Amino acid sequence: MQADNVNKPLLTEIDHIAIAVSDLESAISWYKTMFGATVAHREMVVRDGVEEALLAVADSYIQLISPRQRDSSVAKFLERHGEGIHHVGYRVDSVESTLEHLREAGARLIDSTGRPGSRGTTVAFVHPRGSFGTLIELVEVH
Amino acid sequence: MQADNVNKPLLTEIDHIAIAVSDLESAISWYKTMFGATVAHREMVVRDGVEEALLAVADSYIQLISPRQRDSSVAKFLERHGEGIHHVGYRVDSVESTLEHLREAGARLIDSTGRPGSRGTTVAFVHPRGSFGTLIELVEVH
Repeated sequence: MQADNVNKPLLTEIDHIAIAVSDLESAISWYKTMFGATVAHREMVVRDGVEEALLAVADSYIQLISPRQRDSSVAKFLERHGEGIHHVGYRVDSVESTLEHLREAGARLIDSTGRPGSRGTTVAFVHPRGSFGTLIELVEVH
Repeated sequence: MQADNVNKPLLTEIDHIAIAVSDLESAISWYKTMFGATVAHREMVVRDGVEEALLAVADSYIQLISPRQRDSSVAKFLERHGEGIHHVGYRVDSVESTLEHLREAGARLIDSTGRPGSRGTTVAFVHPRGSFGTLIELVEVH
């Protein structure tokens, strides 16, 4: 990628806002009662040690995530911060080319290459210490 | 509103993901360099003691907010938590009718009625203690 690519928006959609919760069922129930939001997709993401429920909001999702392994990063997040917004996922056309551009532009990356996400997506995370405290996930939908 | 309204989705779009930053110019510059994101709207929101910059992502925004008054809630957030995701804003058809439903359903509200937001919107906040640690803003676009 060349430098002029920064003039083309790379983020095509807010894919999801991820919220870490202790009790997934209670959170699903709350969003149903309060906002009529229903589960569009549910998945045990073994690699990340979490179970997730996606509630559709237009072309985006509220992603409720709850730890299913004690040593998962989401379990540690809950211990340190309690429940709350965990990260934001942005849709991109290509995780690999976005990572390449970010690397050249000096971003601090968690994942140096794309890896499997839920729903058959490819994802990669950008480190919050280099991005104003925000854990950013890049999501490529196939 | 009747109880059956929970079957109709009330959240029509992720309006914005709000990120509290100390230095607004640096954050704007970072999102431009990394993602080619540009400022669609910028406003001094005197009532909230913040300056905001909205970066468009599809029909949603990244809302960068930076305190312009020392006693603003965002200034306190930065002191306690540092930079990071501050809240999520969801678009609704009507803030008042959504608040009425939330009140009946037992949600904990910060604003009991809609108030002016940026961009000429009407907004209201739901308390994070009643919503799994997530500060939720309802946004009605006129």
